[in-house]
Amino acid sequence: MKSGQLTSAGEASRRRLLKAATAEFATYGIAGARVDRICATAQVNKAQMYAYFGNKDQLFDAVLREHTQMIVDTVPLHGDDLPGYAVGLYDTYVEHPELVRLATWARLERTPSGPLFDMDSGPDAVKTRTIREAQRNRKIVDSMDAADVLSLLTALSMTWSPASAMIAATRTDPRSDHERRRAALRESVARTFAP
Amino acid sequence: MKSGQLTSAGEASRRRLLKAATAEFATYGIAGARVDRICATAQVNKAQMYAYFGNKDQLFDAVLREHTQMIVDTVPLHGDDLPGYAVGLYDTYVEHPELVRLATWARLERTPSGPLFDMDSGPDAVKTRTIREAQRNRKIVDSMDAADVLSLLTALSMTWSPASAMIAATRTDPRSDHERRRAALRESVARTFAP
Repeated sequence: MKSGQLTSAGEASRRRLLKAATAEFATYGIAGARVDRICATAQVNKAQMYAYFGNKDQLFDAVLREHTQMIVDTVPLHGDDLPGYAVGLYDTYVEHPELVRLATWARLERTPSGPLFDMDSGPDAVKTRTIREAQRNRKIVDSMDAADVLSLLTALSMTWSPASAMIAATRTDPRSDHERRRAALRESVARTFAP
Repeated sequence: MKSGQLTSAGEASRRRLLKAATAEFATYGIAGARVDRICATAQVNKAQMYAYFGNKDQLFDAVLREHTQMIVDTVPLHGDDLPGYAVGLYDTYVEHPELVRLATWARLERTPSGPLFDMDSGPDAVKTRTIREAQRNRKIVDSMDAADVLSLLTALSMTWSPASAMIAATRTDPRSDHERRRAALRESVARTFAP
């Protein structure tokens, strides 16, 4: 059922389900998430959940899609400001750790190798074209493949993300930590991708 | 029970358990792993497993500890060759994807924020000191905090790791992909941390 066909009460239920599912999947992953808990939190019965989303996996898809779209809308990539993009992602991951956790569960549980998202269409394809264009205009180093630049840039941006193998930043960290990391990230990205 | 106290048959059982547990935890995570499956694969009974390792969580600790030590032994960090370190990690992650998956499960399931490993002692503390020393000797950029350099370097090294939000490299990728990524990684690390 498409959300466009829903009544406003139905749409409100759908929103509550997505919100509850975000918290549940971010905390427990796909296998660990419990549809019962999601429905109880959202105060929506299970039959309705299945009518809206299909099954647990499709509910996860909907949650992940919503969050990746949020990133695209919140932190646009411009070829002449990769450092700003990286710092924008740092701030977004601090504010929305669930986003990175959802993607990382998807990586571990579903897609152990290869591209996590479709690289030939969708947001990553658009970003790769933006980088290639900026390389042509001598705004970004052109000795590296545009898709590799995007991968390296993403990795740098995630240095302190909730998937970090080192330190995962949080909202409650001292402001000086955030400032120091933003400066180091900005400098790293500038140095790495300068033409 | 320390492994030093084990008979050679006991030591062989312990090794088989660690090997089976590595595969099980890397595939399913901590909550998803089944001690029954580990013991069946290792052909060791459960009572013995508990005598050797304590419980499932402690078995995971032993597996993770073994793998992080393997990385330290295989890919040493020298202050005058950060690009070589990063490429060494790239190769190790391709050969041993289970290592990154274990650390990432630990991050998602156990330690959602803050340091994943002890940063004040252990390998990361040693690496941070190595970087600080290299900064003093003008081999590495000194405008960034040594611990931040290690975090950024680790993130870059993991660009195509099995935890990547973009592309997770595998042994079966064309050789040209590996070569291109190694070159991009080498160049990125050189540019980022040059003095």
